Amino acid sequence: MNVLIASVELSPVNLSVHLIEVELGEPKVVMNRADARKIGIVSNDRVKISFLGRSEIVLVSLTDTFISEGQLAVFVDMAKKLNLSEGCKVTVEPSEPRESINSIKKKLSGAKLGRKEIDRIVKDVYSGALSAVELTAFVLGVNFYGLDMDEIEWLTRSMASVGNVLDFGDMDVVDVHSVGGVPGNSKNSLVIVPIVAASGLIIPKTSTRAITSPSGTVDTMEVLAPVNLGPDEIVKITKRVGGVITWGYPANLSPVDATFIESVEYPLGVDPEPLIYASVLSKKYAVGAKKLVIDIPTGPEAKVEDMKTARTMARRFMEISERLGIRTHVAISYGGQPVGRCIGPALEAMEALEVMESCGKRGSGSFVEKSVGLAGLLLEIGSVAPRGKGYQMALSVLESGKAYEKFMEIVEAQGGRRMKADEIEIGEYRAIVRANTSGYVTSVSNRAMMRIARTAGAPNDKKAGIRLLAKRGDKVEEGDPLFELYSSSESKLDEALKMSTLLKPFRIESMILEVFGEVSTGSASPISR
Amino acid sequence: MNVLIASVELSPVNLSVHLIEVELGEPKVVMNRADARKIGIVSNDRVKISFLGRSEIVLVSLTDTFISEGQLAVFVDMAKKLNLSEGCKVTVEPSEPRESINSIKKKLSGAKLGRKEIDRIVKDVYSGALSAVELTAFVLGVNFYGLDMDEIEWLTRSMASVGNVLDFGDMDVVDVHSVGGVPGNSKNSLVIVPIVAASGLIIPKTSTRAITSPSGTVDTMEVLAPVNLGPDEIVKITKRVGGVITWGYPANLSPVDATFIESVEYPLGVDPEPLIYASVLSKKYAVGAKKLVIDIPTGPEAKVEDMKTARTMARRFMEISERLGIRTHVAISYGGQPVGRCIGPALEAMEALEVMESCGKRGSGSFVEKSVGLAGLLLEIGSVAPRGKGYQMALSVLESGKAYEKFMEIVEAQGGRRMKADEIEIGEYRAIVRANTSGYVTSVSNRAMMRIARTAGAPNDKKAGIRLLAKRGDKVEEGDPLFELYSSSESKLDEALKMSTLLKPFRIESMILEVFGEVSTGSASPISR
Repeated sequence: MNVLIASVELSPVNLSVHLIEVELGEPKVVMNRADARKIGIVSNDRVKISFLGRSEIVLVSLTDTFISEGQLAVFVDMAKKLNLSEGCKVTVEPSEPRESINSIKKKLSGAKLGRKEIDRIVKDVYSGALSAVELTAFVLGVNFYGLDMDEIEWLTRSMASVGNVLDFGDMDVVDVHSVGGVPGNSKNSLVIVPIVAASGLIIPKTSTRAITSPSGTVDTMEVLAPVNLGPDEIVKITKRVGGVITWGYPANLSPVDATFIESVEYPLGVDPEPLIYASVLSKKYAVGAKKLVIDIPTGPEAKVEDMKTARTMARRFMEISERLGIRTHVAISYGGQPVGRCIGPALEAMEALEVMESCGKRGSGSFVEKSVGLAGLLLEIGSVAPRGKGYQMALSVLESGKAYEKFMEIVEAQGGRRMKADEIEIGEYRAIVRANTSGYVTSVSNRAMMRIARTAGAPNDKKAGIRLLAKRGDKVEEGDPLFELYSSSESKLDEALKMSTLLKPFRIESMILEVFGEVSTGSASPISR
Repeated sequence: MNVLIASVELSPVNLSVHLIEVELGEPKVVMNRADARKIGIVSNDRVKISFLGRSEIVLVSLTDTFISEGQLAVFVDMAKKLNLSEGCKVTVEPSEPRESINSIKKKLSGAKLGRKEIDRIVKDVYSGALSAVELTAFVLGVNFYGLDMDEIEWLTRSMASVGNVLDFGDMDVVDVHSVGGVPGNSKNSLVIVPIVAASGLIIPKTSTRAITSPSGTVDTMEVLAPVNLGPDEIVKITKRVGGVITWGYPANLSPVDATFIESVEYPLGVDPEPLIYASVLSKKYAVGAKKLVIDIPTGPEAKVEDMKTARTMARRFMEISERLGIRTHVAISYGGQPVGRCIGPALEAMEALEVMESCGKRGSGSFVEKSVGLAGLLLEIGSVAPRGKGYQMALSVLESGKAYEKFMEIVEAQGGRRMKADEIEIGEYRAIVRANTSGYVTSVSNRAMMRIARTAGAPNDKKAGIRLLAKRGDKVEEGDPLFELYSSSESKLDEALKMSTLLKPFRIESMILEVFGEVSTGSASPISR
């Protein structure tokens, strides 16, 4: 359907500022409907506000009651920009729409955007010049119509360049990223980074906090050391000790990514595929990574559930990386149950420390294998291990105790103190959930485990979480412990226990799955059958 | 791509209210990031605020600086609902997402919504419970995935039922609506309504102001009479004199329609087809129309440009009308150039009055034919004219002077006074635009005419507009007048003149369109060639 929008050109009005002591965080003023009509604008139009030679373009909300004709309500953030005070007279006139909005409309019609158009959109998202409606339209336009490889490359570069870009000069920076979605996954970097740094490579690992999972790498690392490094500190510490494990947010690395996620993707439950590539790679580009390993956990109830999707994503990650000059390997890992045995910030930090301080002798096999495997790929791509020998070399770094020593160096460099696993405090309220039938564990639900751990309080209660006492493939007898819950709050522990009963996270089956004919009468109600 | 969102269940915090003297118009509070972390929520989550047994669910914005830990910033609209004052202690806890948001997410995945789901969305739009992001997601979800006939019917019923629904009892109410998009179209109802009312039918015509055109029916009628009738006045006056021509907004008829248009469709330049049907028919359903004529102007630069689209729309309008129990005829009219000769509120009101007071003797043929034609269809559908005889009957009502008399009755009933066309004031600043070549007028651009009229000040300057002195098919000589511009402002007239030169609204061609061979040297630069 064609819609004809005639643009409006009318003369300005002079209005008296009414200052409102609120930071609105959106570029918006409030006008009386009568004044708006004089200059021919409607709600959600933009106006240019001018005062003493300076001007700003902002969105307009209209009111009949809140302010009277002749007044303009201005919030403090805007007032600061133009140096406005109560009662001063400003000129208000209709503004041509921002160019970025025309580009957003273009994407809504399915067209391909140019490099400059994408640059303008990203800059306007960063400066907060877009309304929530426009920002949503961009993300949903991308969700519906997608972006081609050119557009993803341009978007990735724009997203990196509006924030800080770290400068490691000629140093051969490596990095690792997991697409995530599997509980217990946040601790991997705590083992990978020191193995890689201890092998002579440079790895400035930045990551995020959990939004929907029980712990992000940042939440887990924060149990052991501060994670608020600025961009210069990241470069300085990484150069000195070989690595950091820190939060990208205070370093302002690809800052627009968080805006897309927090403002649109999370509230609407959408995860547009092109934005996954741009999100990951813009952050890696911003830290100056030249070589990269990406982990795609794949399996039932992981973010990626099937191998076909995982392979498509792997190819696209590689193609865009190549365009950015980043040499990338992608590992598709098993993501059908939690990684290792611990879930939650303190529990995961403890599990990582246990593995390192025991030189790989303690700790769950799946966790050690995954961390050492990814570290090994980094050693190969970083040319310190011959092809096919990375795993063995990474394992020997772990077994030699060098990984533990390097990790302690990193912890201290970030402002933490040397620590043993048994010094980490975990939730004082505990409960064990037991099997109510005998058989083999045929699945442990990622989704249910995430929900139970969050109900216990993770990640905000760092001491809350889950320790798995049985995993997929284990044989259990009725009454055997399946997992232990931890919380700092008795009531949350109770809630988490109730949630465990409700969600039935373990599936336990006997070797004979179904019997046709006469039904056995002696069976107890299974946890999930 | 599957995204796993684990929901969060955490215990509440108690916060101290900091009251902000602003009506925000969105259900939002501001919390310190530290408090948000305690209850496990992120920006744009919803929380339940409880105070003295009452509670409200609102969106959260997070801040590090604006308010300190332990405080909650509340805007006056929210404060009133819960009876909050500065410093009082409220309980804040995470809220399960609103059910309507799950339905919006469902539409974003392309699924069909149920009747109850649509009801809940419409109610939440009306009460302002949705954020701008969610509202945008609904409209864009409809734009991308469409709605089927069931969904459109349910949406239409919901949109009507959240506002006022007029009660005319058993009276056989008729109504007329034009999809619009053509300049000069706003005056039709001023002629149609009195013809229909003078013939003994009941026609409570409500409409809207212009958003992007030079005049809406309401803007034009307002030149002659007040248009702020409430729902009871509409019923009372219509019953007494047979018709009204008034604004739907103060009567709160299908109020959500304006929210969709002003908040999302207009700023993003989208016009989702299913919302066109729901918009028109919800308003007609709300006034209690039982019989309806819809006009779809079709032609180059109209809203609908081709007959195929127009016919599809016509069929859908009829199908949904039938489901609503409204008997509907759809007329596809020629919309390839402006209707009649006048554009702009006062000029169009004048043209309509001229036609009626001259008993159809004065006034442009295209305007008279269109108005009488649509009125005739209403007389047929309203069973006061035999099939095929409506046009003749409508014309004789116009020619008898009864239409003029009935119109004056309506004007007076709405609070206006009897008036002749030459009493209407039009812009004192005027300019004539002339042909700079000779030939036949082969087109008059709708889009350019709308833009020029708006540049001259219409619809906010009621006296601004255009009078066409030549139309499609006319033969003109170089120097002949093509149209006259009117404005209350000298500078706007100047701007409109410049815009006329720039946009070249007339295309004038000689009968020989192109000559191959030696190029003639004597040709003046044409207005548009």
